[in-house]
Amino acid sequence: MKFEVTSNIQYTVKNQTTFLFNISASKTSSQTILEEALHIEPYILAEELYLKEGQKRSIRLKSNETGSLKINYRALVNLEIEFFDKEQLNQVPIEELPADIITYLFPSRYCQSDKLIRLAQNKFGHIENSYELVCSICDWIYKNIAYISGSTGSETSALDTVTDREGVCRDFAHLGITLCRALTIPARYFSCYAYNLQPPDFHACFEAYLGGKWIIFDPTGLAPLNGLIRIGTGRDATDIAVSTYFGNVEFKSMDVLNQVQEQNFKPFYLKDLQERGICLD
Amino acid sequence: MKFEVTSNIQYTVKNQTTFLFNISASKTSSQTILEEALHIEPYILAEELYLKEGQKRSIRLKSNETGSLKINYRALVNLEIEFFDKEQLNQVPIEELPADIITYLFPSRYCQSDKLIRLAQNKFGHIENSYELVCSICDWIYKNIAYISGSTGSETSALDTVTDREGVCRDFAHLGITLCRALTIPARYFSCYAYNLQPPDFHACFEAYLGGKWIIFDPTGLAPLNGLIRIGTGRDATDIAVSTYFGNVEFKSMDVLNQVQEQNFKPFYLKDLQERGICLD
Amino acid sequence: MKFEVTSNIQYTVKNQTTFLFNISASKTSSQTILEEALHIEPYILAEELYLKEGQKRSIRLKSNETGSLKINYRALVNLEIEFFDKEQLNQVPIEELPADIITYLFPSRYCQSDKLIRLAQNKFGHIENSYELVCSICDWIYKNIAYISGSTGSETSALDTVTDREGVCRDFAHLGITLCRALTIPARYFSCYAYNLQPPDFHACFEAYLGGKWIIFDPTGLAPLNGLIRIGTGRDATDIAVSTYFGNVEFKSMDVLNQVQEQNFKPFYLKDLQERGICLD
Amino acid sequence: MKFEVTSNIQYTVKNQTTFLFNISASKTSSQTILEEALHIEPYILAEELYLKEGQKRSIRLKSNETGSLKINYRALVNLEIEFFDKEQLNQVPIEELPADIITYLFPSRYCQSDKLIRLAQNKFGHIENSYELVCSICDWIYKNIAYISGSTGSETSALDTVTDREGVCRDFAHLGITLCRALTIPARYFSCYAYNLQPPDFHACFEAYLGGKWIIFDPTGLAPLNGLIRIGTGRDATDIAVSTYFGNVEFKSMDVLNQVQEQNFKPFYLKDLQERGICLD
Repeated sequence: MKFEVTSNIQYTVKNQTTFLFNISASKTSSQTILEEALHIEPYILAEELYLKEGQKRSIRLKSNETGSLKINYRALVNLEIEFFDKEQLNQVPIEELPADIITYLFPSRYCQSDKLIRLAQNKFGHIENSYELVCSICDWIYKNIAYISGSTGSETSALDTVTDREGVCRDFAHLGITLCRALTIPARYFSCYAYNLQPPDFHACFEAYLGGKWIIFDPTGLAPLNGLIRIGTGRDATDIAVSTYFGNVEFKSMDVLNQVQEQNFKPFYLKDLQERGICLD
Repeated sequence: MKFEVTSNIQYTVKNQTTFLFNISASKTSSQTILEEALHIEPYILAEELYLKEGQKRSIRLKSNETGSLKINYRALVNLEIEFFDKEQLNQVPIEELPADIITYLFPSRYCQSDKLIRLAQNKFGHIENSYELVCSICDWIYKNIAYISGSTGSETSALDTVTDREGVCRDFAHLGITLCRALTIPARYFSCYAYNLQPPDFHACFEAYLGGKWIIFDPTGLAPLNGLIRIGTGRDATDIAVSTYFGNVEFKSMDVLNQVQEQNFKPFYLKDLQERGICLD
Repeated sequence: MKFEVTSNIQYTVKNQTTFLFNISASKTSSQTILEEALHIEPYILAEELYLKEGQKRSIRLKSNETGSLKINYRALVNLEIEFFDKEQLNQVPIEELPADIITYLFPSRYCQSDKLIRLAQNKFGHIENSYELVCSICDWIYKNIAYISGSTGSETSALDTVTDREGVCRDFAHLGITLCRALTIPARYFSCYAYNLQPPDFHACFEAYLGGKWIIFDPTGLAPLNGLIRIGTGRDATDIAVSTYFGNVEFKSMDVLNQVQEQNFKPFYLKDLQERGICLD
Repeated sequence: MKFEVTSNIQYTVKNQTTFLFNISASKTSSQTILEEALHIEPYILAEELYLKEGQKRSIRLKSNETGSLKINYRALVNLEIEFFDKEQLNQVPIEELPADIITYLFPSRYCQSDKLIRLAQNKFGHIENSYELVCSICDWIYKNIAYISGSTGSETSALDTVTDREGVCRDFAHLGITLCRALTIPARYFSCYAYNLQPPDFHACFEAYLGGKWIIFDPTGLAPLNGLIRIGTGRDATDIAVSTYFGNVEFKSMDVLNQVQEQNFKPFYLKDLQERGICLD
């Protein structure tokens, strides 16, 4: 299924600033870039930094001029979803986890899984099937955390979300990751262009490592899982922020879009995950 | 019903130290001191500080000598319990609360009720009867927080208990207070000698202000509510610590006892609170 | 010296709401109310709640009507400052503190003094004269914390201020209180109308208990200490919030003013505190 | 210079448990393993997991038997130190940082650098030479944080250390890393066998990325920097914990040793870092 994704970000630069952007669609076995364009106005030479870990293609650029800076990214992407029956999606025993997956068991800045072990065990420890367990975590987050735009900020962590009970997609993903790790299921943050997200914006979900695959989950239930165009993954939001800048800039505006390019797209939501999961890796 | 309460506390004093003890049974309309004795060894003149707020009778003493210090308190107390049907125990509207009760709506050191409003409303906001609401809070704490001796310390607050899901009587009381305040029910910390507590120790419960009365609740379910000999109350544990000292001392030992002096004592536990509440004020 | 203080606060009330306001000048031995008026529009009967602790005169009112609500307070106040030489302002030994002062040694919601003992001792523990010690605390806060309007919120505590190094008058006061208590000097929050504050607003300072007097300190250095018209005191901001409401309201605007009514006012700032302190109690 | 390092760790295993150990000396351009042995008693097949990121050689083993488990590691290591004059150790501009170094600018579980930016800038922002800046960070930590064995635990983060002002080598390293990252200097956690550490134990330091090199710093000042045998590095302690286990075990004992095997070893301490830094990478 083909999707066209675009993002337009605008800043006013007030002094020399280096930017890192994570807005490019990543290249994975399930995701192919058919066309792609990056426009920077005024023109600045940008560099692509590729990181195998997280398969992210960061854009780095340095603005020496003050004034307006516009970044425009557009890609035509083909996405081939792989479905797996829940019977195939068991937890991988720790003694069999690949070395580079073990990292995703450990706590991180926004996902203090060492602090939520008892909570996770009380609520989900009795669920034998690991795929059902992660679905239950998503369901619990969906029912217990209020999705409220602007309720949280860049310092909000999963611990805050447990007490405050409110947040945005980023916070929902962080809490999902944290509860998985607390139960020794590797989990990571997934940044993407989501189809049909209202209002349109960058979106965040999480992946859990089940049956040797990274399976996608979205505890917000806001977007179809088979329309998520992957930007990259990380331990948590800190690794895959849409934009990080070192300098003095003023954010002006951001437009994000993901449009399906074919007919017959059948959205597959969180609630459709009962029997089979999706791998976008 | 008569109870004999005793406590023996022993320190090694290493330099000049001023102590504050909250170990004396308080004098209230439901609690009469029939006999009482305080022994300090070696003898030091102790002073009683009475605070109307909290009805606490603190003991202050200054040890100028180093070495062993033993405090022995004993009292024979008559306790007259008052029961109230739950229909009488409605929430007092804020516009009718006495001025000195309003304080117990506000957050305190260990009870950050401003941070748990959404959690409290999600879980208990739908319960119309205020007495049932506080009972539900106790029930939820009892079922979701593990009572584990030594799991927490003097810095542990209600926010930690929500994330860590473990604690002792102090933490259970703090969480109960916090959830009540988050729902605009005044609540305060209650320190006492509990009958039949295993292992024997000082105990902490909380009171909620319902129907114009301070009604007692014990979310640990560990001790009969009709055998609690009141030491005093406060906004949270900081106001009514068993012992606070200013100096260099080493804690050696503590023995606490509460023995009923009459027959036919019928214990009345948390689970018996369905229809009527108890006022010990 | 006479001062005229006024405040105008406006809300849009969206459903039945009970308000508590702490905007009335308090009556103390150094502060006399010469004239006073409270206007509420539309008219609602308001009640004054007087609390001896904190000498605060809270206004309680219940709005049953939705729509605009305006509160206008005005008072003409005579303030008689008492100065004390720093030699008179020694720390009162704990064994001599009045019972109701001891409370101000304990940690509170925004002043977790139990967590800053080592920091306080490292930085200020060597200063023998207690009055100089509190002056040094103010000086350190003034130099190390950036005063930035809007940088903090209602959940910000002294611990946050130590790490974030920014805040407003409320945060400066909380940190001053916390460091004093950590060194066993009783300290409390002081809410007031400040003369010559730019931009005009309610102001917060703190008092430390020295030489048996509550001595005023303002670590922001923003307003003359001899022009502070006292609203009330409390353990921290939670006790003496300008406005607390229980209901659904939208804040519209607030105007605050404190104008001296006599000539020859000689402002006395933080930096003038070298030799003598001021008691406003 | 040759060093012999040994560690003996003993557990009582109570049910099936998978262990991860980070106790093996790593192989880097400056560190060569001359001899090496690992003994496990009772014998269990252990697997080495090599992670390029952090150059760590984790040992993974699964104990199916309950009872005693002893791990004994021994290695003879040759360490070739490289010194760099401080003029060579400038901060690398962000636009020139290698892609895989950028990660070490971001906050992590124990190093919330996003929260300490103002503190870092206030205290160290004026220092132009980056090498001197990191030396000043170490000096400030050394003077302001008390090294107290047992004062902190596995949940203690750099924010706690800023407020509590106490900790162990792990906490000192976390705070150093956090302050560097807050000033956009990449920094990572360094776990090692330290020569002459009293009492002997595993040790933690940190590396800052200066002049295109990872330069070693030890804010505890407890061990010579030219006697540190590298186990591995990570974002913080979570990546390179001595031991992580998944199961029910009881820790029994741990012995750690690092002995120099040649004469004429001249210890080079934190205080000797004035003019030149050391790279152990």
